[in-house]
Formats: sequence, structure tokens, C-alpha cells
Amino acid sequence: MTIYNPPLRDMQFVMHEVLNVTRDLAAIPMHADMDADTINAVLEEGGKFAAEVLLPINRSGDEEHCVLDPVSHEVTTPTGFKAAYKQYIESGWAALACDPAYGGQGLPLVVNQCFYEMMNSANQAWAMYPGLTHGAYAALYTNGTPEQKETYLHKMTSGEWTGTMCLTEPHCGTDLGLMRSKAEPQGDGTYKITGTKIFISAGEHDLSDNIIHLVLARLPDAPPGIKGVSLFIVPKFLVNADGSLGARNSVFASRLEHKMGIKASATAQIELEGAIGTLVGEPNKGMHGMFVMMNAARLGVGNQSLGLTEVAFQNALAYAKERIQMRSLSGPKAKGQPADPIIVHPDVRKMLLTAKAYAEGGRALLCFSAMLLEKEHNHPDEKTRKDAAEMLALLTPIVKAFITDNGHIATNACMQVFGGHGYIRDNGMEQFVRDNRINMIYEGTNTIQSLDLLGRKVLGNQGATLKKFGKLIAALVAEEGVNEKMAEFINPIAMLGDQMTKFTTEIGFKGFQNPDEVGAAAVDYLRVAGHMVFGYFWARMAQVALQQIAAGSTDPFYTAKLQTARFYFAKLFPETSTLMRTARTGVKVLMDTDAALA
Amino acid sequence: MTIYNPPLRDMQFVMHEVLNVTRDLAAIPMHADMDADTINAVLEEGGKFAAEVLLPINRSGDEEHCVLDPVSHEVTTPTGFKAAYKQYIESGWAALACDPAYGGQGLPLVVNQCFYEMMNSANQAWAMYPGLTHGAYAALYTNGTPEQKETYLHKMTSGEWTGTMCLTEPHCGTDLGLMRSKAEPQGDGTYKITGTKIFISAGEHDLSDNIIHLVLARLPDAPPGIKGVSLFIVPKFLVNADGSLGARNSVFASRLEHKMGIKASATAQIELEGAIGTLVGEPNKGMHGMFVMMNAARLGVGNQSLGLTEVAFQNALAYAKERIQMRSLSGPKAKGQPADPIIVHPDVRKMLLTAKAYAEGGRALLCFSAMLLEKEHNHPDEKTRKDAAEMLALLTPIVKAFITDNGHIATNACMQVFGGHGYIRDNGMEQFVRDNRINMIYEGTNTIQSLDLLGRKVLGNQGATLKKFGKLIAALVAEEGVNEKMAEFINPIAMLGDQMTKFTTEIGFKGFQNPDEVGAAAVDYLRVAGHMVFGYFWARMAQVALQQIAAGSTDPFYTAKLQTARFYFAKLFPETSTLMRTARTGVKVLMDTDAALA
Repeated sequence: MTIYNPPLRDMQFVMHEVLNVTRDLAAIPMHADMDADTINAVLEEGGKFAAEVLLPINRSGDEEHCVLDPVSHEVTTPTGFKAAYKQYIESGWAALACDPAYGGQGLPLVVNQCFYEMMNSANQAWAMYPGLTHGAYAALYTNGTPEQKETYLHKMTSGEWTGTMCLTEPHCGTDLGLMRSKAEPQGDGTYKITGTKIFISAGEHDLSDNIIHLVLARLPDAPPGIKGVSLFIVPKFLVNADGSLGARNSVFASRLEHKMGIKASATAQIELEGAIGTLVGEPNKGMHGMFVMMNAARLGVGNQSLGLTEVAFQNALAYAKERIQMRSLSGPKAKGQPADPIIVHPDVRKMLLTAKAYAEGGRALLCFSAMLLEKEHNHPDEKTRKDAAEMLALLTPIVKAFITDNGHIATNACMQVFGGHGYIRDNGMEQFVRDNRINMIYEGTNTIQSLDLLGRKVLGNQGATLKKFGKLIAALVAEEGVNEKMAEFINPIAMLGDQMTKFTTEIGFKGFQNPDEVGAAAVDYLRVAGHMVFGYFWARMAQVALQQIAAGSTDPFYTAKLQTARFYFAKLFPETSTLMRTARTGVKVLMDTDAALA
Repeated sequence: MTIYNPPLRDMQFVMHEVLNVTRDLAAIPMHADMDADTINAVLEEGGKFAAEVLLPINRSGDEEHCVLDPVSHEVTTPTGFKAAYKQYIESGWAALACDPAYGGQGLPLVVNQCFYEMMNSANQAWAMYPGLTHGAYAALYTNGTPEQKETYLHKMTSGEWTGTMCLTEPHCGTDLGLMRSKAEPQGDGTYKITGTKIFISAGEHDLSDNIIHLVLARLPDAPPGIKGVSLFIVPKFLVNADGSLGARNSVFASRLEHKMGIKASATAQIELEGAIGTLVGEPNKGMHGMFVMMNAARLGVGNQSLGLTEVAFQNALAYAKERIQMRSLSGPKAKGQPADPIIVHPDVRKMLLTAKAYAEGGRALLCFSAMLLEKEHNHPDEKTRKDAAEMLALLTPIVKAFITDNGHIATNACMQVFGGHGYIRDNGMEQFVRDNRINMIYEGTNTIQSLDLLGRKVLGNQGATLKKFGKLIAALVAEEGVNEKMAEFINPIAMLGDQMTKFTTEIGFKGFQNPDEVGAAAVDYLRVAGHMVFGYFWARMAQVALQQIAAGSTDPFYTAKLQTARFYFAKLFPETSTLMRTARTGVKVLMDTDAALA
């Protein structure tokens, strides 16, 4: 049986002891009165929902998966999914971080972040239904007309209606400029939209009364490429003036994909056959509106892998303490038993600590990112909003790619702890690996993220934002540079911070001569940047732990945090040296390979 | 549709141009007349069997998987598996490398090696049925009495009967000393065997007339632990004196595992309820007999990942040439098309070349290993046999763990080339990832392999065998040290060879003080050793390619080989620097973690 204990203590540590979120929230009018107790109480309840309602239907959902009725085009979700969703909306979870103007509870985004982490741990496939809705809510909230918002956001806040994002077509995924779906104006302010969309998560299901598709399509005479793409709302059921459901729109699922994982998430092919929609935002500016959703989704995907890393760790740890097999190399440890628990073996510990270090580093980064998103949207000071937006833009591809790659490493390591029993479906470990695998692909593959980071976010502004992150490191170094106890954490990040400047300049120079150099270095670069960021947060976490211990705390939580920080810097962080070296070998060995790749 | 083109040209290159196998085979009486044309012709036919018979039932086998009838305890394999097996034995493939004394064709093991690589590419799950049989054949061939061999080996050579190895029990996998299955002597030379075995590949199926289980169990009054384990033959149907099938033995499948991959391979729980068996070899020396099979199986598992790496590469390459999406960063390449094929992107090339470099390096190592196995068993000179055995003992854990870990990296990279389409089951890429995943686990997890390598094979003889491999490198360095064109390949392996000596001594010294230091360093160590070995073979392959080009060859095969060698040394080999660094951080950060792993 898969276990899951919501990591409430660590969330509290990150939010209140490391990031001091209530201090920052106090400057934001809508959250001015938010206190730690409220946040903690909400997350405690959220954790119960995840562990008690979503976890029990995770394995069964994977086995049952979703089923499409080829005649009615309706999709049935696995047993228990509908009941769990009913409980979810009745308990008000859908409204958690939504605007009170539409019935939301207006809690800070960082709370929603932690709540989703727990839902992802318990059941990533299930969590995608509300997750997509939240993304669609954010896109409409930012880009919709007052009328559109009034029509749709109340029901999306309550969770009665869910949302999707319809971008991909059979011939275009990354390259949305190749899009073919058409939108014809009807003269009454509506459009008839025709085309085929694929890989639409939550594209059709039985959880909600209506499904609000956000669809990219081309207007007649739109310019070619990505600059001719517009965004439309296409509801499954048209909405009457009084808000009640009207006619069934001609948008339907023609196929469900059979996938490696997240099998309980309905991945639909959607046919639009003159479906009626309304334009969101300006004509041909569809990508602008969709980017709000895509950026939120990229953070959300990193959060999915954080959730899976945490739950995989918890289960592997429990197994390693319980499974007895072989003796410790340094002599028997459990003398009363016929063998030692496998946790005595150094490499088993290495696999477990890899997951733990990546989970806790990821949690710190994601909570930090959620606070940036909060500031970007809701802070009263314009410069703060702008700075937050800029920093978040830098961190978003790192959150998406670094945390999902780490999730791949961690879920595989935790599965490996189980040996052959990890390969058996009943034990649940291999599902975490399969579910995580999509996170490295969707919402822009991790290669695309690396190009976004290096090409756009770093070189695109001559490293200005990167330097701002470097200042955070420099400040920590200045603060703790003479503290001997912090040296083991400060030295590596100080050194990497220095190297990054030189490393970035080098690539920028080479890329100026040959843009493919950027493409050749980007994936290695992102991983180095990821360790720079994780290293910074691990140093800050170690700092707090040391301060608490110095102040007399005997809470083993702080000892654990220090041990994990030491492990991280000793065993994971050093890959940066190889990554910088391989990045420096450049593009020639990749591109002069026409014979090898004939 | 999955494609597969048997890599006959590369096999010929490795066997005839790099390893010169016929020269070595000439010294072995049973293969003295073996020529390259015969080898190539057999493999050409073998490739057709793999591509035309096994490949078409790979995806369908994964979807259908095996089914156990709970009443009859019989297992039905997926559609087409039985017909393919019939064709396999009728064409004589089962007999390929078996002794002519039992009806075998007596071909060199290296031919069998290449044949199995192709079967693994086409259908790893299917190839496990004959693969297990071949392992059981080898164990009986080496350890059986003349009567046992006469009774069983003819039918196993023909393929009419298949074999298994029954080691694992619910409470013991790695630690076979915990085994509980019992064998009671009946006074007539037979034993009644009782116990439960799990994870038995090919443990029950409908392909063959009889299944010959090789079972480990304890005799009454056997000493405790691994030294009290004996090996028995337990056939599904008892065999009459005239060789015909007799009564059904009380050994049956009680369960089939539902697994992440190799779903068409029947992984059975086997109940022995007083099943009649005969002893193989001496009492309490069962592990000795089983080790013949396990060592063969470890090479076989490496070969499974080689096969999957190759087929994943071929499909990703085809997709990368065909899928158009985005423009090259350095300007449009396919100007007549709306976008460029994704192979123009450096990181796509990196993913493809990673698979190619690991496949071709693995093929060289596995063919080299097959020749060592041949010499160990069949060379007339005792010292040659002993040297070969010793070198193969060193290389076996590297073949098993390094090649399967590389297979994990490569199959995931090739799946990633497909983007979202890689996650869809229909496209076949994710099956390669799932099928490969077991290879890192079974026949001794990759951590166990690393302990075997570092603890037993390297430190166990003070690095003597490792030094012998070092001499191969030193000879190549001496031969090519002044050849400027070879410098880029020779320098890295010369440097790593030197570092390995120091690195090994350091760990040995630390391990002498604390044996857990060996456990902490072993996984990193194995990967460094793997690159040392791959680096050596890549340098030798580059050497041959350069010689051919210097001699006027315009065959693009040699250009491709050089390009891949350059890629390997630039992008893959450098991880050794981080691995040595993390290994050196030692065991303390792993073991001082009781709070973190509470």
C-alpha cells in the first residue's frame, strides 16, 4: 500500500522560517491580514483531502484509465474520480486562490502551490482536472472582457465548470505557428471554429457540468505563423444569458490517447466542427493570452514532479527501513534479525537522499516562485511587480525543466530501492516514474525550456536578470562569509556564482558567432543554473537550521535539514563541473555528424 | 510503426575489423574453420527473423500480455508468440551456439551474442523465453551428470523444451542465503521440493512441450545461509526413461506479475508442492552451478539494453528526419518546407548521438565479452582460459550495470526526441523505456553489480585484473601515442587510465578502514570504469576508421564512426570527472543521516 504523509512541517519551514511569506504578504493589500496559522490550518485540511480522498484512487485510476464512448463522445473517468471531485468542490478547494469577486477565497498563491503539491503527490492524474481549470481561470481572469469573466469565472471558481487549453495539433506542438484551425466571424460577435486539436488534457470527462475550452485558431486573413493566432473561448455547452446551460456546442472528443502514464487523466483529441466561440483579447494576439496560462502551467508541471518526488521518497524510505536483506558491509546492525534492513547500505541511502534533497530544494524554489507570481500580479508597487515578473520569468524554465528532470532521477532511484518489487505495478513505485515522465515533455519540452532560459531569459537581456539572482547569492555570501559553520554551504555557491558569469559570457560570445552554439549548450546550462538556484536555497535552509540549533533547538528537523544539505552539496551539486565542461565542448561535435545520423 | 534494421554492418565492423574474431577463433579447435562469410550470413538470416517475425508482435504483446488460467495454472502468451517460437525452433535458431553432441550447431558465442542483440531490439519480452533456456542449458551443460545432460540437453538444444532459473523467494532476492525452499531426499536419488519462488521469468507458458526449472533449495540439515543451498532440476513434466514425457510434476504457476514492462514475458510465482527433482552438482554447492547461469544472464541483460538502445535510436533518428517543427537557430535549412526537420537542432542531435554512441560502444564491449566467454570455455590453452575468465569476471558487472544504465539514458532520450508523441503507447518509444527499466534491476541490481565490481573484482585481488585492462589501454597508447590524428581519442583514456590507479588505491585504503566506504563509492566507480572500457573501445574503433580513411576508403561508415567517437569523448566521457569527485566525498554524508532518514 502506498503511503503519503503531507509534508506540512517542511512547508511551514519553507514558508515561515526561510521565506517569511507573511512578511511579504503583509505588503499586499488583499493578503495584508494573512497569518501563518491560517495558512497552516488550510494546508493541514488540504493534506487530509489529498491523503484520504485522492491517494486511494491513484493506483486504481491508473489501472482503469478513462474510457471514451465512441457514439456519445462522452468520457468516463475511473471509479471514484467523480465522487472525489464532488467532495473537492463542495469543500471549496476549487476556489482557494480565486478572486472573491467571483466567489473565490482569495488565499495567497503560495498556499495553492502547497495544496497542489500534495494533490500531485497523491494523484497527479486527478489533479490535472482542477489544474487545467485553474490555468484557464487565470488566462480568462487576465485577458477576458468583464462580460466573459462574469459569464465564466463564477462557475470555474466554484469548480462546477472545468477548463482546458487547446493548442497542439497533429502537425504542430512546439511550433504553434504551423497551426491550421480556423475561426470564422459570424457577424454577431461570435466565431465558428473548425479544426483538430490533440493532447488536450481534461479535454472531455464526466466531472463537471461544462467544459470551457480555450482554443487557439486563425482568423481569416490572419498573418502567417505565430503572429496570426487568436484565442477563443469555446464552451462544451453554450451558456444562456441567464447563465444556464444552453445547446451542446459542436466540440467533441474523437479519441483518447493511450499513454505511458497519467492514464486517469483524459488526454483527448478534440474536433471542432464549426464550434461557436468568442474572442479573448485582441485578434492575432492569442499567444499573449495563452502565455499567462502556459507560464502558470509550467510552474504547475514543476510542482507535479515535486509532488511525485516527495511521495516516491516517502515510500522508498518506508520500504528501506522494513525490507531486510544482506548484512551491512561494516558488520551486522540488526543482530536479532536474519539480515539488516537495506537502509544500512550507503547506496540505498544515496538513492533516498537524492529524492529528499531534490524534493526539499524544489519545494523552496516553488514556494519562492509562487510568492513572485503573487507579487507580479498583486503587489501595489509597480517596480516590485516588474522585478518579480522578471525574476519569475528567469526561474520558470528552471522550475519546469530542472525539477521535472530531478523528478525523473528521484522517482527512478526510489523505484530502484524496491528492487524487483519496484517493477511490479501493485507496489505503486513504477507509476510514479511513468506519471513523472510526461512532465519532462508537456508545456514545452525540457529542451525548449533550456532554450527559453539561455536564449531569451539570460542572453536576451545580457544576463541582467541572472545578475539579479547573483546578487541574492552575493548577499548571502556577504552575510555568512565569515561564519565557519556555513563555509561548506557558502563556498560552493559563491564559486559557482563566479563561474556562471564567465560561463554565460563565453556562450553568449560563441552564440553571437553561431546561434547553434546556444542550442548546443542550453540543456547543460539549464542544469547548472538549476544547481545554482537549488544551491542558494539549500544554503539558506542550512542557515536557518544552524541558527535554530545555535539558539538551542533540539528539534531533529533541523539536524535532518543540515544532513540533507551536506548530502546535496557533496553528491548532487558537483555535477555542475562536468556540465560546464561538456557545454564548453560546443556545437561542432554535434553538427558535424551528417554521416553518423544519415 | 516501429522500424528496425539489423545493424549488420556495425556487427561486421566490430567482429572483423576491430576484434578480428576469426583470428582468435582459429585457435579454438571447434571453431578453427569459422570464417567471416559464414558468420555474416547467419546473422543476416537472424536479422530477418528478428525484424520480420519478432518485431511485428512486440507492441501487440505489450498490450495483450500473458494470461494465467487460475484453474489449470496454464499461461497463454500473446497472439503470435507461439507461432514465432515454432518458426524459431524449426529454423534451428535455438541450437545456434549449442554443442553438436546434443544436436547444436556449434557456432561461436559471439554469433549468438549478435543474434540475441537483434532479438532484443525486436522484442525483448519474447527473447526472454529462449534466453532463459540458453542459460539453463549452460548451467546443465557445465554442471549436470552425463545422464542429466543426455536427458535434457537434446530437447533444450532443439528448443522443444525451455528452461528457467528459480532463485528468488518473497523474502529474498539479493540475499539468497535467506532461502526457505526445502528438498527432501526420497531414497531413490530424487528429491521432493517444496517452496514458493517469485519473479520466475518464462516460469509458465504455452511455447514448449516441457519446462525445465533449475531450482535452488535447502537439503535437510543444510548449513544456514548461502552455503546450504543446492541446485535441482525440476521439470514441469517428468521425463520417462525413453525420453518421452511422463506425469505432470507438482510445480505450477500460482500468479503472474503485472509489471511496468516486458509484459509479454511471463513472470510467474511458482509453487513447488513436493515436486520431484534431481540434484545438480554437489549438495550445498548450488550457487556454484547457478553462477554459470547468472553470469551468462548478466551478459544477457546487458545485451537486452544494447538491443533496446539500438532500436530506440533507429526510430528516433527516423522521426527526427521526418518531423518538421520550428526553424534552425542558425537560419532555415529546409526552405521549401514550412519548418525544418527537428534533426537540425543541436540538442536533438545530442539525444540521438547519445544513443548511437552507447549502442556502438556497448556492441564492441559485448562482442569482446562473448569472445572472452568463448575462450574461457573452449580455448585449448589453460592460461588463455584462465586469463579470459578473469577478464570476463571484471567486465561482467560493467556489461550488466553500465550498459543497462546507458540504455535507460538512451531510451529516455530517444523517447524525448518524439516529444508528446513519445508518451503515446502507439508510437512504441515508451515501451522501450519500460522494457529497459527491468534490466537495471534483475540478475542483481546495478548497485549489487557495482559492489561486485569494486569489492570483489577490483579490490578483491588488489586491482590485478584492472591492471590487465590498463595494459590494453597502455598498449594502444604506445601504439598510437605519436599519431596526431589519434590524440583526441588517446589522451582522454590515457589520462583516465592513470587516474583510475590512484582513484582505486584511495578507495581501497579508505575501505580498509571502513568497508562502507566501498559501498559509498561503488556506483560512481562502476560508471567511471564503464567509461574507461567504452573509451578504450571507442579509441580502437576510431583507430580502425582512421586507418581505413588513410588507406583511401570513402565509405561514409568510417566517417560516421569518427564523428560518433568525437561526440562520445566530448559529451559523454567527461562525466567521469564529476563521478570521481562525488565518490571522493565519501561515506560520511551518506551515513550521518539518521535524522534525515528517520
